[in-house]
This record gives sequence, structure tokens and C-alpha cells, in this order.
Amino acid sequence: MSDRRLEGPVRIVGAGLLGASIGLALREKGVDVIVADSSPSTVRLAIDYGAGRAAVAGDEPELIVVAVPPDVTATVVAAELAAFPNALVTDVASVKGLPLAELRELGADLSRYIGSHPMAGRERGGAVSARADLFIGRPWVIAGHPAISYGRAAAVERLALDLGALPIEMEVEDHDASVALVSHVPQVVASLLAARLVDAPDAAVRLAGQGLRDTTRIAASDPSLWVQILGANSGQTVPVLRSLREDLDAVIGALEAPAAPGSRRAVAETIAAGNDGVARLPGKHGSTRHFATLIVMVDDRPGELARLLTEIGELGINMEDLRLEHSPGAQFGLAEIAVLPEVEHRLVSELEERGWKIAGETA
Amino acid sequence: MSDRRLEGPVRIVGAGLLGASIGLALREKGVDVIVADSSPSTVRLAIDYGAGRAAVAGDEPELIVVAVPPDVTATVVAAELAAFPNALVTDVASVKGLPLAELRELGADLSRYIGSHPMAGRERGGAVSARADLFIGRPWVIAGHPAISYGRAAAVERLALDLGALPIEMEVEDHDASVALVSHVPQVVASLLAARLVDAPDAAVRLAGQGLRDTTRIAASDPSLWVQILGANSGQTVPVLRSLREDLDAVIGALEAPAAPGSRRAVAETIAAGNDGVARLPGKHGSTRHFATLIVMVDDRPGELARLLTEIGELGINMEDLRLEHSPGAQFGLAEIAVLPEVEHRLVSELEERGWKIAGETA
Repeated sequence: MSDRRLEGPVRIVGAGLLGASIGLALREKGVDVIVADSSPSTVRLAIDYGAGRAAVAGDEPELIVVAVPPDVTATVVAAELAAFPNALVTDVASVKGLPLAELRELGADLSRYIGSHPMAGRERGGAVSARADLFIGRPWVIAGHPAISYGRAAAVERLALDLGALPIEMEVEDHDASVALVSHVPQVVASLLAARLVDAPDAAVRLAGQGLRDTTRIAASDPSLWVQILGANSGQTVPVLRSLREDLDAVIGALEAPAAPGSRRAVAETIAAGNDGVARLPGKHGSTRHFATLIVMVDDRPGELARLLTEIGELGINMEDLRLEHSPGAQFGLAEIAVLPEVEHRLVSELEERGWKIAGETA
Repeated sequence: MSDRRLEGPVRIVGAGLLGASIGLALREKGVDVIVADSSPSTVRLAIDYGAGRAAVAGDEPELIVVAVPPDVTATVVAAELAAFPNALVTDVASVKGLPLAELRELGADLSRYIGSHPMAGRERGGAVSARADLFIGRPWVIAGHPAISYGRAAAVERLALDLGALPIEMEVEDHDASVALVSHVPQVVASLLAARLVDAPDAAVRLAGQGLRDTTRIAASDPSLWVQILGANSGQTVPVLRSLREDLDAVIGALEAPAAPGSRRAVAETIAAGNDGVARLPGKHGSTRHFATLIVMVDDRPGELARLLTEIGELGINMEDLRLEHSPGAQFGLAEIAVLPEVEHRLVSELEERGWKIAGETA
């Protein structure tokens, strides 16, 4: 219990998934956690789950974490700053510029506020889904602004570290521009692409492969949440969408006259720019190292994939990545295994010797 | 060797990845395979790999498979139809309308030609990468047109079945419209999205998560191949891109004035349409059944994932899907495991009892 960085108490306002998960994780570390919510029933539920205790008169929190929907974040942060004049206040909304601007308009004491954004992805709502492990290994942006130094906001960094997250200091504007690029625009694009399938013939949908599945996976996201996020970060999202539309117009123009001079070049440059962009994404452990990939056929019954991975482990080879792909209508899967290029050849021959079928390799 | 459907000989023209893979698979079944290519060196290499034998005078192939780049497909098919007046000829180009139109212009005997399209995804070129298993479980479209019946083209269906593929009969126009939707437009969209990252600050790229990685994975494709494919299927691709641009314009318009009446609704409907579209994609075994997903933390060392999967197998639980996600900078991965909803609860409690950390669940 002595490895914690925060002293506490920590007051959490908003006992949904994020708030309750923060409470659970801090309680595991022995921090005194106070849970508050506009709904008394929600508070009691979170307390039942072990996320903290109810507020009492005289509480003097070291840190207040506001974990409410984006559109009420500023109001709640302002109220907490006023109610607890000695506490540092943060919030966990996924957009940082709008709450800060609203707080300025409300005349809040910004010398005690710094926003943050834990990049903890997939969510099912409510304290019922809360997990102490939710933030482990995830980036946790601490969004700086001129009225406070990162040094004065150190308790937020301690919070992130106590939760196992990776604190990343970033100015508010840079954060919002970054998430527009890596999260908000991809969401819009995936949704627009998936929407093409609504009226598609069944026969077309049958031909869909892993490429389309990957490209549209995040299109399953919650519309009401995204209305708030996209609305709150429209200033950063619109310019990226406009640049994408410009390039889309160029592709459409080229494909309207595919044999015209310059058309092939325009299409080639679009695909090549995509090559360059995707190459910038960090791989495992933040590296951009390239791995060799091989595809192994795995019978669709319990234990087969485990047997494959056990044999790979026995060879002393570490998998850098793994994904399963199912062929439509087939009784087996294809396991796509990424390894360091220098071990690929040995792995292929060892696996083939043991009777595994290799369905493909890519360098 | 008696389970084959084709009699042979089968003549393959073009000994690249697809042609050589077809040859290897047919040879394994004992079919007499003739390999031809405009490059004598390529023919010899494919023969070295066991893809077939060289042509000799008097060869009377039952079936000719043309596996050359899209832009020379029609010329080669026409030459084969003329040279072998008794053979059925097919090709494996990923676009079907343009070669057919070119063959009509060339005055070819279309009563002996039917195009096809094996949906065998990832490719590294050349006979050196050929695999007899390449087509197993993949859809193989047989693209019908008025001058030939599917019955007269039955040898192509036998070819697909002999290779372990799933033959799907589909008119040329339907095929081209389908692949525009499920393959060509997703490629353009993924490339355009990934291109946004070319000039992105490092700090932004560091925040990228699995969502962006999935959405842009296919952006790593070969530009010169896609220039041919998109150019050959522009007629079917442009209308889909235009409808996407219309919807993109609507989103941009809404986000330019996010507080205006109707803006929130426009954004919500975009995301909701994406929900509807992605829900149409077939899941495992072609079903659209929903699975429960749990996320298990796995230490990053050889054998750990195998141990997890072995224990899941011991519980008698079949994984429906599996993917690994790596946290940037962290020394462990997150294994996302999809199971039938009715076994989720038992799996979570059994795994927790065995000491595994569950980092999240989604229904």
C-alpha cells in the first residue's frame, strides 16, 4: 500500500465508468476516495462497488477529478473550484479547449485547474462496468494552459502514475488538434464509409474481407457521445476534414477521366501518401520497426490456437503481434503472426515441420 | 489424389503469385498443369517451385487461367481463345467489366470466356511467394455475362472447389459494383485518412490508438497496383465516392456551426448510419451474431499468451475472435477475446480466479 504517490483524499465528481474506475484503482492503493454525483443512487452504486465513500462536511480533498459528460464539464469544474478553495481540480473529458474557454467565461480560478484526458478506449457505461485496470499502460494527457504550471499540477501526474497510466504533458490546443487527427476524424471517416453499406446488396456484403472490417470497426460507436465530442472539437476537426475533402475531390476528378494525362499520377500519389502516413504509426512499444508476418491455418476448435502459440513459445520466439481472421463459411481461422524478420524463416520451417499449414507470408 | 474435380490439363498464363499458387494447388491434386508466361525466366522459376510443366506442341487444355496484370488481361485472354479453340478461358483480375468490354471490341469468342475473381487478399508478388493454400476458404467470384451460361463455365467452379475456395456466381456488373463498395472505396478512404498523418506532429502520432491503426491498415497497399484497379473500375467507384463526399460535406457543414439548429442531428445521423452499416458485415462463419468481448492483460514474454489460451481451452470455451493490442511503452499486451455472451460471465470469474487481470468487458 506504500507505493502510492497521492496522499488523498481524492474527490471524484461523476461516478460513471471513468470516475468509478479511478475510484476503484485509488482505493486499491489505499487512497481515501470521496465519490459525488448529481444522482444519489449513482453515488450509492459506486460505493457498493468499492469506488470510495460518501462526502462529509469538512472534507479537504488534495485533488478533485471531474468525470462528467463534456457538455457539463465546465459548470461542474467551476462549482468544485468554488466549493474547495484549496484543491487542485482536473477533469477527464476528451476535449480540452472548450471546457477551458467556458471556465474563463465563468471567471473560475484557473490557477487551480488543469484538464486531463486518459486515452482509455472502449467503454460500456456506468459504475457497473468500472475496472481498476482501465488506465494501465494508456496515455494520460495533462493539458497545460498559461494560468497554471505543470509543476503546480503535479498531483494530476501522480494520479496518472498511481493508475498505471503514462502521463503526457501537452498544451490544450495541441491536445485538441492531436485528437482531431488521431481520433475524431478517423471516427467520422469510418462512419461515412460504413454508411455506404446500409443499402448495399447482400451479395456485395458477402464479399467483404478483413480490410473493410478493420476500416469500419469503430463505426459501431455511440452517436450521442460523438455528437458532444465532435461538436466540442469542431474547430480542430473541420480543417482536417476539409483537407481530406480536397484530396477526395482530386481522386474523384482523376477517376472521372482515368485515362487523362495526370490522372494515373494523381491516384498513385494518393495511395503513396497513405503509405507514408501509415508508416508513421508507432508499432509495438512505440517503435516503428517493421515485422515479418506469417499466416497460419488454425482449426476452429478449442485449444488449437493455444497449441500453436505454445509451440511458438517452445521455439523461444516472441510474437510481436497476433490477429485472427475467419474465412466466411469456413471451419477454421487464419492466425496472422508478426515476428522479428530475423526469426521468420526459422519459424516457418519449424511450424511446417510440426504439420502447421502456412497460408502466406509478408515481409 | 482422387478427390479432384478437374480433369486437366489446366494451362496457366502468368506465373506470378496467383498463377503459381493455382498451379501449386492443382499439382498437389494431381492435375496436369501447363505454365506459360511472357518471361521464360518466370516460367522456369514457377516450374522449379512445382507449379507445373512447360507447354508442348499438341497441348489440349480443359481450362486456361489467365493471371496477368489487369491492363493486359483482355489481350492475353483473346490470344488464348484464338490459340486453343476448344478450351474454356478465365482470368483472375480484380475488375471484370473492363476486360469483358475490351474482349468484345477485340471480337473474341465470348462463348468460351468467363472471368473470375478469387478474393485472396494479402499478396507479396511472384512465384517465390506462391502458396497452394492461398485460396482456401476465400470467396471466388465467377462473373457471368450474356454470351455464356454458368453451366458451360462449370470448369471454373470446379477449379475454385479444387483450390478450396467458395465459388460465388455473380454478374460482371454486380461484381464490379460490389468490389467498388467493399474493397476499392475502402482503399481510397483509408489512404486519404492515413495521408493526414504525413505532416502530423510526433506528439499527435503518439496518441494514436487501435482505432486509427485499424482504420488505416490497408493504406500500406501498393500504389502501382491500385492505379490499375481504380482506373479499371472507376465507373463503379466514382458514384460511391461521390455519395461519400456528399455526406462528408454535410458533416463539415454541421461542424462549421455545431450549435445551429439541425447540426447535432446531422452529426448523430452520420454516426448512426455508420452503426447500421457496420452491423451488416458478416461476423465469424458468415453470421452477424454479436459476441461479448473481454480484455485480458498479458505479460510481454514468450508463452504467456499461449498459457492464457490453454487455460481458456481447458475451460472448454471456444474463442470466437482474438486480437492483441499493445500499449505504447508498456511491457504487456491486452488480449481482446470474443466469446459467446452466455459464457462470458463464467470465463471472467474463472480467469480472475486463476490470477489473470481483466482490463475491461464489452457486451
